[in-house]
Amino acid sequence: MDSDVPKSRSARPSRSGRPRSRDTLSREERKEVTRRAIVAAALHLLAEGSFTGLSLREVTREAGIVPAAFYRHFDSMEALGLVLIDESFRSLRDMLRGARAGKLDPNHVIDSSAEILIASISDRREHWRFITRERASGVAMLRYAIRTEIRLITSELAIDLARFPGIKDWSSEDLNILANLFVNAMISIAETAEDVSDPSALEEIKRTAVKQMRMIAVGVRGWRSVERD
Amino acid sequence: MDSDVPKSRSARPSRSGRPRSRDTLSREERKEVTRRAIVAAALHLLAEGSFTGLSLREVTREAGIVPAAFYRHFDSMEALGLVLIDESFRSLRDMLRGARAGKLDPNHVIDSSAEILIASISDRREHWRFITRERASGVAMLRYAIRTEIRLITSELAIDLARFPGIKDWSSEDLNILANLFVNAMISIAETAEDVSDPSALEEIKRTAVKQMRMIAVGVRGWRSVERD
Repeated sequence: MDSDVPKSRSARPSRSGRPRSRDTLSREERKEVTRRAIVAAALHLLAEGSFTGLSLREVTREAGIVPAAFYRHFDSMEALGLVLIDESFRSLRDMLRGARAGKLDPNHVIDSSAEILIASISDRREHWRFITRERASGVAMLRYAIRTEIRLITSELAIDLARFPGIKDWSSEDLNILANLFVNAMISIAETAEDVSDPSALEEIKRTAVKQMRMIAVGVRGWRSVERD
Repeated sequence: MDSDVPKSRSARPSRSGRPRSRDTLSREERKEVTRRAIVAAALHLLAEGSFTGLSLREVTREAGIVPAAFYRHFDSMEALGLVLIDESFRSLRDMLRGARAGKLDPNHVIDSSAEILIASISDRREHWRFITRERASGVAMLRYAIRTEIRLITSELAIDLARFPGIKDWSSEDLNILANLFVNAMISIAETAEDVSDPSALEEIKRTAVKQMRMIAVGVRGWRSVERD
């Protein structure tokens, strides 16, 4: 059945950068090729509809394998959905964390975070369309997984925010509320950017993102005196 | 066919507050009762699924009328969807505008706006669930209508913001970006509140909303000096 997998779309490049022909792939590598084909097929079909409306049969047909072969790679359709969520968020979270690591200039952190967010959305357009849609509707388990990812990003940001001068002595409740404000602004930006592919329009969205996060950051400096003095 | 309409759910109370029996309703009033029954039926069914998955036949069955009678009240299913969007946003927009009218104390405006938003979500839970879901997925025309409503709220806020001292001389681009930041914070709050019915949890969400909007408002005072000096 693996031989039904289309070679083109999902073949991983070898270390030299050229895709290797299937014949030179190991058993494990062939399995991974099929797995990637299933993920790509699901993403492709999800561009048009919601996850609830997606059947295993459609996915395997699109991937060029028989339906039963699906279960060699995923336990269920929901498990496939969770992989899509994980793929979307993992690299974004790593990159955002990296952008903040050891840096104490808020403007610099804001610029890099906006850059990373917009790049991630442009690179993984299908992933993000899926995330935006499933965040609001569909399967409860996926909705929950997406909210958990967003909460993770928020709490990691709250921890990092505590290192900034002037925020150090905020209560953890206030830190979380502030982190939440930043993350919600980024979610809204992501939703706007999702439908946009024109580079200059994306640049405009990034500028707005930077301005909004700076407006919040400016507030941060004044907040303490307003609340506590 | 109007006689198939269930009397209980959608009968409007008379001026004295008691629902009048159908027999005393005028032709126009009976038509309105059926119209409300269709809207209520659609909302009820939409609690479980998306608008794309909703058929005219299901709606009319739930409303207790024959399918053909639907067209005496709505041109199409999409027209019904637009009515649901309009009902959700119109009163919210009016109330938010009212909360800002003539008031120049930002804290007061923030408190009332959060109050209004949470009350609207608690009162029209089915409407808001529909809005949240259709904002991200489903029928393009409904998605577009929801975005337009949100843009309307944003631009009305931008106009009102221009009255506040210290913001008067902002560029209209900055005014819109600021309004957008407030509105996005409110959308995120609405999404969080939507699944919550416990009054003390709702109170907590409202507190967070107020704090977030105050954090932004504090930034507003500092923003100009940072950007323009």
